[in-house]
Formats: sequence, C-alpha cells, structure tokens
Amino acid sequence: MASEFELIAALKAVFDSTGDEQILVGIGDDAAVVAQPKGKVAMTTDMAVEGVHFNRQWSSLFEIGAKVTAANLADIFAMGGKPQYLLVAAALPNNFSVEEITELAQGIMDEAKKVGAVVIGGDLTVSTVMTLSIAAYGSIKDPILRSGAKVGDLVIISDLPGKSALGLSLLKAGIKDERTSEHRRPTVNYAAAQDFALAGVSAMCDISDSLISELWHISRASGLGIEITTEEEIDFDGGEDHIFLATISPHLPFPRQAIEIGRVVLGKGVRINGSPAVHRGFTHFPE
Amino acid sequence: MASEFELIAALKAVFDSTGDEQILVGIGDDAAVVAQPKGKVAMTTDMAVEGVHFNRQWSSLFEIGAKVTAANLADIFAMGGKPQYLLVAAALPNNFSVEEITELAQGIMDEAKKVGAVVIGGDLTVSTVMTLSIAAYGSIKDPILRSGAKVGDLVIISDLPGKSALGLSLLKAGIKDERTSEHRRPTVNYAAAQDFALAGVSAMCDISDSLISELWHISRASGLGIEITTEEEIDFDGGEDHIFLATISPHLPFPRQAIEIGRVVLGKGVRINGSPAVHRGFTHFPE
Repeated sequence: MASEFELIAALKAVFDSTGDEQILVGIGDDAAVVAQPKGKVAMTTDMAVEGVHFNRQWSSLFEIGAKVTAANLADIFAMGGKPQYLLVAAALPNNFSVEEITELAQGIMDEAKKVGAVVIGGDLTVSTVMTLSIAAYGSIKDPILRSGAKVGDLVIISDLPGKSALGLSLLKAGIKDERTSEHRRPTVNYAAAQDFALAGVSAMCDISDSLISELWHISRASGLGIEITTEEEIDFDGGEDHIFLATISPHLPFPRQAIEIGRVVLGKGVRINGSPAVHRGFTHFPE
Repeated sequence: MASEFELIAALKAVFDSTGDEQILVGIGDDAAVVAQPKGKVAMTTDMAVEGVHFNRQWSSLFEIGAKVTAANLADIFAMGGKPQYLLVAAALPNNFSVEEITELAQGIMDEAKKVGAVVIGGDLTVSTVMTLSIAAYGSIKDPILRSGAKVGDLVIISDLPGKSALGLSLLKAGIKDERTSEHRRPTVNYAAAQDFALAGVSAMCDISDSLISELWHISRASGLGIEITTEEEIDFDGGEDHIFLATISPHLPFPRQAIEIGRVVLGKGVRINGSPAVHRGFTHFPE
C-alpha cells in the first residue's frame, strides 16, 4: 500500500508546473501563489462522486480524471473565460496505489493541457466513496451570463445533446463499445465556446444537467420565453454533455459551429414545437 | 424531502454577497467573477469526509461547516495572505433538508465572516458519505514559505497543540463536555498568523496534520535541522489544531502571541530535547 507521501510525490511529478513564471508557489506549501494582472477572474468548482457521476467498473481512472476536469473547464468557457489554474481535492480508497493515482492525475492533466490550464494545488484524503472536487480559476474579459438573452435572439447549441446519456444507458446494459466513449470521457468542444464568445452571444451556459434544464435557466434568468422549433429528435433530458447553449442576435454573423434550435420571445418559460416543456430540472436530489 | 432547487435557494440566502462591488457575478451562473487588482493571489483547497474529519453524531452541521472553512482560511493565513473568496462543493445525503443545509451554510458563513471572506460559488451533489470541499482564494503580498527558515531562527507556535486530539479522544469515549469544543469547532487564532507575518517570520505553516509532521516539513523544505527544547508536555502527534508554526530571526522583536519551542540549526531532521523525533507523518493513508 502506498503512503500519502508517495501519493503526493506521484501527483507532483504529473502536475509539474516548473517553468511557468506566473506560478510563484506551486504544489507543496499551505497554498499556491500566482502572479495576477489587473482584470477579472472567473472561479468555479465541480464535484464528482463515484456511483453518481462516474463508475470505476466501466470508466478508467484516466477517463474519470479527464471527465471531472472537463466539467470545470467547460464552466469557465461557458462564462466567456479562459481557464488557467486548477486545485484538485480527492478522497480516495485507502488502498489506492501510486500507479492508480498517477493514472487519475494523467487524466486530469491531459484534459487541462487541451486548454493550457495547470494544476497548482490540492488536497488528498481517504473515503470509502471516491470523490473528486476540482476548483478552476481563469481570466475573463466580458462575462457572458445566463441573464443576457434578448427578444428575437436565436437559440443555438454547439452540438446535439444525448451522447453521454446514450453511453450511460448502454453501459448500464453491459455494452461498452465506442458509443459509450462520450459518457466515459466527454469530448468538450472548447473552441466552439470561444467562437460563440467572439461572435458576441448575449447569453451562454454549458449543458451539464440537461438541455431542457439549461433552457429554463436562461429563460428564467433573462425574464423571457424560449420557443424551440426542431424537426430533429433532440434529447432534452440527458445530462453531462457539456455542449454549449447560447443566444445570439440574428443581426450578428452566425457562429461557424452553431446549430440553431429556436428563438427568444417575450413571455415566460420554454415551449418545444408549440407545447410547453416540462422542467425536469436537477436530477441528483429529489424534486 | 427538499429539491436541489430549494437547497440552492437556501444557500443563496445565507451566502448573499450583494453589495460587494468586487463580486461581479455571484452564486447562480456557470462561474463566479470577481474584479482583481494587479498583485499576487493565494489559492488552496481542503476536503473533509464524514467519518474521517467529522462525525455528525457529535458535531452539529454548524460546527462541521465552520471547521472545514477554518482549515481553508488557516492555510491562506499560514502563507501570509488574506482570504477573500470561497467556493464550496458539498456532497450530501439525498434526504438533506432545507433546515440542515441552512445550518451547514451558516457555520461556513460564521467562520468566513471572522476574516471578511465570502462564499461566491459552489456545487451541490449527493453521496452516501457526506463530503465537503472548499477552495479559498486570497490576496497576498510576500508569501511565507516552509522553505524560508534560517540557521539560528527561533521556532515559535501560536498556541500549544493537542486540544483537538484531546477532544476527539473524549468524544470517542462518549464524553461531550466543554473540552471537546476545540475538536468540534476549532478556534483559529488568525490574528496570531497576521502578527507572525508582520513580525517578519522566515517560514510559517499551519498545523493541520500534527506539530511533528509540520516541523519535519519546515526542516526538509529549508534543508536545515530543528532542535526542540521544552519542559512542557507538548502533544506533537495530535492533528487538526490549526495553530501556526513559524521560524523567526532572534534579532527581530518577538511576536506577542508566540510561544518559543526551539531553534533552527545546521543539519537535518527534528530533535526533541536532544533525541531524534520520529516522523509519524500523515495519518489518513497507511505509512
């Protein structure tokens, strides 16, 4: 069995940030310290629990690390920000090996590298239920809020949702083929979020719970209605897709990677092809 | 049973940060956004697991919230920084009530208020093992590292350790009197850490694991030995005291709230009254 000292040494090796001049104090002291220019800073945190967000039976530790990291990075991009630093807190089974923690850390690192973010600190403890909590910190110029939608705006998404939910249902049925990869490790299209931000979207969020729940968020936060018109079969209820949902003025150039699914209208609530949509809302706690 | 929507509404009510002009986006969007002047920023995270760090049998939710918050705040102070913002991730049993989450949040808020910090974001999920993870963010001018100790420096602590460990042993024996309060909710002397920093300490850390383990940290990080000389019975092995350990030049004015326990010397390792001290190290994972 590995000691905490050995586990932390393994993490330090994977998360090595020497050479980054902005990081004044990295892993190993009471806190990390970074140099910060004047400006705005975005901060978010996302926690994942074994049996709720991931399952070691069908996901590798590398996939789990990457997935939890992606959820945090997507939140910063969904505000129009750019992630820079991550803090990783992990509660692990007490028989975790150096190889296992290394694989978990490499998954975190692999996803963070995609956007140039680095892990600068963390905390390690034991639990019978493996739990990861990441906090992400990034630079941001003009925060894009859920409350910014305007009447007449187009409603757009960066991809069709449902791949994660489909993967989960297959995994639950004992099938672990290529169609499950988006559940085990989602491919987040961070570039689409940057395109949306550059295009001048009025509201944006990432679809971590479900498309319908995020449509309701934007509708409520903006005090307006949303009319979805679609001939396609869209999965409104599946979770964890981490695709980006936004609203944009029809007078602006249409973003390259966008799929138009509706309009922002005067009024309240969400309607799909003319019918009021039920707000299933959050899934982890009872309604 | 409360819905996640009701739980988050309760959290928002307790963690209300309206009126703080530095907080541009608070709880409720994908990420929080704060205005940041040019300078240095300290970041840390600390996770607490039921059955490992706290026990709902003998600690109230208010005490648990305050304790986890204190651990994070102490880490920022131990670097010489001032905590400003907190992100709180909580995995809670699925039958948690609005009253329970309110009490937990009030405990977090009560401790944060002591130092002027505010909760600006978080994440809520379910778990069979209640788990809290807080990330703290603060301003800092001159980081005080564990590696800064110099030969001849005095070794000082802000209080005698052992109160938390004593409290825990009493609680385990079924005794819940006043002596257990420091385990259930530690009183962290943040002012002492500020005094130490102002006095010009060369190294500092908070004693979250145990005094002996932190003495080893400073010794190893500074590449020097530490000689402890004490006639008092000091608990070197008890954890979770969150008192501050520092080293300071004997030529500087002695900090008001300090207790001198030894000297930094040439060499390696920690000696107590002339005998080599065993490094028990971390406690949560096997050695």
